[in-house]
Amino acid sequence: MRPEIVLFGDSITEQSFKYGGWGASLTDTYSRKADIVVRGYGGYTTRWALFLLHHIFPLGSTTPPVATTVFLGANDAALPGRASERQHVPLEEYKENLRKIVRHLKECSPTMLIVLITPPPIDEEGRQQYATSVYGEKAMTAPERTNEVAGNYANECVEVAKELGVSSVNLWSKMQETQGWQKKFLSDGLHLTPDGNRVVYEEVVKVFNGASLCAADMPSDFPHHSEIDPQNPAKVFQERGLL
Amino acid sequence: MRPEIVLFGDSITEQSFKYGGWGASLTDTYSRKADIVVRGYGGYTTRWALFLLHHIFPLGSTTPPVATTVFLGANDAALPGRASERQHVPLEEYKENLRKIVRHLKECSPTMLIVLITPPPIDEEGRQQYATSVYGEKAMTAPERTNEVAGNYANECVEVAKELGVSSVNLWSKMQETQGWQKKFLSDGLHLTPDGNRVVYEEVVKVFNGASLCAADMPSDFPHHSEIDPQNPAKVFQERGLL
Repeated sequence: MRPEIVLFGDSITEQSFKYGGWGASLTDTYSRKADIVVRGYGGYTTRWALFLLHHIFPLGSTTPPVATTVFLGANDAALPGRASERQHVPLEEYKENLRKIVRHLKECSPTMLIVLITPPPIDEEGRQQYATSVYGEKAMTAPERTNEVAGNYANECVEVAKELGVSSVNLWSKMQETQGWQKKFLSDGLHLTPDGNRVVYEEVVKVFNGASLCAADMPSDFPHHSEIDPQNPAKVFQERGLL
Repeated sequence: MRPEIVLFGDSITEQSFKYGGWGASLTDTYSRKADIVVRGYGGYTTRWALFLLHHIFPLGSTTPPVATTVFLGANDAALPGRASERQHVPLEEYKENLRKIVRHLKECSPTMLIVLITPPPIDEEGRQQYATSVYGEKAMTAPERTNEVAGNYANECVEVAKELGVSSVNLWSKMQETQGWQKKFLSDGLHLTPDGNRVVYEEVVKVFNGASLCAADMPSDFPHHSEIDPQNPAKVFQERGLL
């Protein structure tokens, strides 16, 4: 039985197997070492994600994930009074919901590596262009998300990680270190381009590697083909107790 | 519990989550509908894959896969007396091994959709260029695989599928319908480019769709975010028996 790594989050997780996606890259990296299980729910906030928690991470499982990424907040940070108002979750509740998620995951498995990923930065201009492309003149002129507010959620996400002693990736900060991040990393001001996916992938792998989940050091399932003796293929399987 | 679809095969399956990979595209298509589980073993032949069968597809499982792709033969078709001789499996044995695999999968679950995928065509020139790039002057001048021989394996694969009443994708034929398939679909004369991955993805989805495994018709796990009442988010989860 291979160890499982669960990717839990919103659309940015759900879409992580599109062309150049960070989930696909993780699956490739952990090939024959761990199974990557995608549990991404487009449009979900931390408030709504709480309803999924016991289903996706049942307590008392004998095979809980060895690691879970929690990538939520991009929807919580939607502004009240704007187009995506129904998704708004106040900052304090966002923090508390993240705490509930982390506590549940720890209860699910005290050894699970938990990685909180902050919302990405927002390219407000790109977001507005996207809204206009979808809704035409009906698009609100005020953006439904701002980069500043997303940054507040990102900061609190990192704070919760520190408070509860789990890992975090500050994607909001990291992406803004690169000039032209707005178009380089974001396709519609919020979701990720292949380059943006690459950043998530690299940052997550960095955390995994630092936590003894380095793919190169993990055992492969079944012998490498070069270890098989063509004259006696059963031998290596016998030696590994696989026959 | 989501249904599982297993991708069983050699390196072309193991690498199916690389950039533009067919495994990643399937995962994206079946997002929130089914889990795609990759069980690809680079360099493996049908002879060696038999040792994995009971481990990957244990009999008596209460949750066997709903579908499995079996994508083997590219290594079996390596020529005797050439560089990859150790992988050569005679044509008749290849057929018999495929039969054993299909019979085992049917025993594992009589309702499982089984899809045999033939080896891809071989671009002999590309294969030779690859060998020279790796081994320099030491590379054998005679190719370790020929397109003609790969075609024999492909034909027998399709025959076994017919004989045992399971589905098949004749990738060897399909790819050669496109002009310039040699460089368009194959990166080193054998493994797939993103365009080549696209062909596998499209052909597999076609078979799945024809077998009532059409993603669009399968239920999503958990309510779509638009069905959640922001004033009473618990409601839809209660209605679905999720609370």
